[in-house]
Amino acid sequence: MRAVDIIRKKRDALEHTREEIEFLIRGCTRGEIPDYQISAWLMAVWLRGMSGAELAALTEAMLHSGEVLDLSDLPGKKVDKHSTGGVGDKTSLVLAPIAAAGGLLVPMISGRGLGHTGGTLDKLESIPGFNVNLSAGEFRRVLRECGLALIGQTAEIAPADKKIYALRDVTATIESPNLICASIMSKKLAEGIDALVLDVKTGSGAFMKKEEDAAHLAELMVETGRRMGKKVVALITDMEQPLGRAAGHSLEVIECVEALSGAGPEDLRELSVELSAWMFFLGGRSASVQEGRRLAAEMIASGKAKAKFREVVRLQGGDARVIDEPGRLPKAKGKVDVVSGKAGFVAGTQCEQLGVACAVLGGGRERKEDTIDPAVGLVFHKKIGDRVEKGEALCTLHYNAENRLEEAKKLVEQSYRIEAEAPKGKRALVRRIIGAEGLP
Amino acid sequence: MRAVDIIRKKRDALEHTREEIEFLIRGCTRGEIPDYQISAWLMAVWLRGMSGAELAALTEAMLHSGEVLDLSDLPGKKVDKHSTGGVGDKTSLVLAPIAAAGGLLVPMISGRGLGHTGGTLDKLESIPGFNVNLSAGEFRRVLRECGLALIGQTAEIAPADKKIYALRDVTATIESPNLICASIMSKKLAEGIDALVLDVKTGSGAFMKKEEDAAHLAELMVETGRRMGKKVVALITDMEQPLGRAAGHSLEVIECVEALSGAGPEDLRELSVELSAWMFFLGGRSASVQEGRRLAAEMIASGKAKAKFREVVRLQGGDARVIDEPGRLPKAKGKVDVVSGKAGFVAGTQCEQLGVACAVLGGGRERKEDTIDPAVGLVFHKKIGDRVEKGEALCTLHYNAENRLEEAKKLVEQSYRIEAEAPKGKRALVRRIIGAEGLP
Repeated sequence: MRAVDIIRKKRDALEHTREEIEFLIRGCTRGEIPDYQISAWLMAVWLRGMSGAELAALTEAMLHSGEVLDLSDLPGKKVDKHSTGGVGDKTSLVLAPIAAAGGLLVPMISGRGLGHTGGTLDKLESIPGFNVNLSAGEFRRVLRECGLALIGQTAEIAPADKKIYALRDVTATIESPNLICASIMSKKLAEGIDALVLDVKTGSGAFMKKEEDAAHLAELMVETGRRMGKKVVALITDMEQPLGRAAGHSLEVIECVEALSGAGPEDLRELSVELSAWMFFLGGRSASVQEGRRLAAEMIASGKAKAKFREVVRLQGGDARVIDEPGRLPKAKGKVDVVSGKAGFVAGTQCEQLGVACAVLGGGRERKEDTIDPAVGLVFHKKIGDRVEKGEALCTLHYNAENRLEEAKKLVEQSYRIEAEAPKGKRALVRRIIGAEGLP
Repeated sequence: MRAVDIIRKKRDALEHTREEIEFLIRGCTRGEIPDYQISAWLMAVWLRGMSGAELAALTEAMLHSGEVLDLSDLPGKKVDKHSTGGVGDKTSLVLAPIAAAGGLLVPMISGRGLGHTGGTLDKLESIPGFNVNLSAGEFRRVLRECGLALIGQTAEIAPADKKIYALRDVTATIESPNLICASIMSKKLAEGIDALVLDVKTGSGAFMKKEEDAAHLAELMVETGRRMGKKVVALITDMEQPLGRAAGHSLEVIECVEALSGAGPEDLRELSVELSAWMFFLGGRSASVQEGRRLAAEMIASGKAKAKFREVVRLQGGDARVIDEPGRLPKAKGKVDVVSGKAGFVAGTQCEQLGVACAVLGGGRERKEDTIDPAVGLVFHKKIGDRVEKGEALCTLHYNAENRLEEAKKLVEQSYRIEAEAPKGKRALVRRIIGAEGLP
């Protein structure tokens, strides 16, 4: 078998065999096939696409390029959630404790923020002492002890994805639904889970701006997961505006604790409950999604979910006092409001631009190597549909570096669309569910 | 400007600016843009194509990646011919002396054989002492003195093409008409010529098996050359069977000398005269192609063309006695006939396979690094349409290594299609002319 012949096949829109894909991914992981051949193949995949069988073979080859966790000795169903990312998207910190409190095991391996989106690891690290770099043994111990563990990608998990992602990044082959699917699913399935709930964002703050693109990716991921014997559903959810009222790491942790206390913004609670409900249902903890919702609500009302969060923070070395004393979290030096130039109703936001504004303040990364400031961020006072008066605050910027302030302010100002009439109806938060056919 | 953005544009089928292409080719030549970005872009070009303006910009950028000969101090028009290659394709050794004898300057930079095709340089090197590696100064001196010079590619000519060709070879991006055009034209135009005659082969022994593919490539090359201010026409010529009666280096030199003497196979003479005639016409040595044919025939009949060949062999260090004493050329140890298994008419040949048979005997290369045996080869006794009796020789193999003989024999045997009826009509040698519209 020769890499050049495999490239030629994809170039000519022919279907790969499983063996060809395994040969390519193995050679890539071991450094036996040079980058210039992999990148030519990636471009051919971008332009020619893949069949469902090819995609499953690719995902499986990438998954098996490294370690796959074997959690079979831990009793109970292992269920996780993955989100494609957005602005203020913080549900992991809420739903993982809910799910664990409700009897699931949540072995969550997360990523860092990049570009306009925040990352779960960065949020967790705003809690003083919280360690996301557990050894395999520690990860297992925390998971066994409290039902959830929250860590970052290790070098052992899907190394093929790391190499391929780095190449995609510099060869304009990121935005291929097939390659995105294989990247996400190979990493998530390396967690050794039984079921997975996908939160595929759509709207101006998401990677997939168009709902049909989000639905297409969701379908690929659901099909690929199922071909590999996993229970998978995907919720297509709204990212036309930030989720909740905060973007920025400390600020989001505070909001998550509020949600776990049954307070805080309604949309964050609603989506966290919805995703937890699907996790309960797929993990066999509830006979229906509706029952899953009740279980999730109960975990919040009883304080059990919040207690779980406290427990995991403590077990991973974090200062659990932040949960009752949010003042212990990093705090920005200054605050300034962005006010509305006119009276009316919030008709929409340039949601990605709000994420960029947060990054400009220091709360995000341009490149993987950049460090972030956990204290800074944005607090949104108005959601789509809200009435606003001239001079009333739309958003408060929490900043440390004054020299970045003007740029961030301008971005936020330009992000709000204010109109005289209130928008008709309310945008549904969960827009569509993929893979729910025939489920109760 | 960033390479990744340029790749993305081509991926999305957008048109490059001249500046973008220059940036990419400059970065590639200098090693500033890594191979994995170039190869992703090459695949995007393969699949998305290029506009005429993009192709001209690419050709020009590759041309200017190295040295462009300035022959303006030499009086007279500089005209060359380029062939896309085939089996027994040896016209360069005939037409270059004809053209020079008729008053043109022919600064011919040629390649070596690869795969099933022979190369002009290899043929020349079968002449003892012939040096194809002249310095720029020597090249110029030979050209001034006798009107033609025949050398190989130097490191200074179109270095971008060398890098890109090496990448195309391993990323399945060879067979792109745009990339083929840019590769050929950047090297040919680096010769500092005024006009170029292209011989684009089509048929079972050519790279472009289908005539419409050959015509498409020819159109691209003609248009690209004209955009760069050069006179260019392309002849689409037949490669359904070998040209002339010999394949193999010494054997072909002998045949070329015969052609220069007005003897030898008719098809070789016809095509050499035809291509010379176009060279004369484009170079202003004749008022029409018809007149160019007469001038070419005159150069043969008068012995002037043969004298030119003798002169260039001598000036480039070769043993010019081979021209009158072909026995001085390398000669194979053994000869064996391949005979027809039945009586009938030659209806067709697997021409590429005949080229492979020659390579198997040692007369060709699998890889660039391979050395070749100038003595071995094939002599074809029957052309398409010829009557053949059972047991009559179709072809004679000239060999040195007996262990390769069986394989070569089998290839040749399988290459001839013998049928009971004679094929109807005669295949035209020159099938089409591209770029001749409006010319006398």
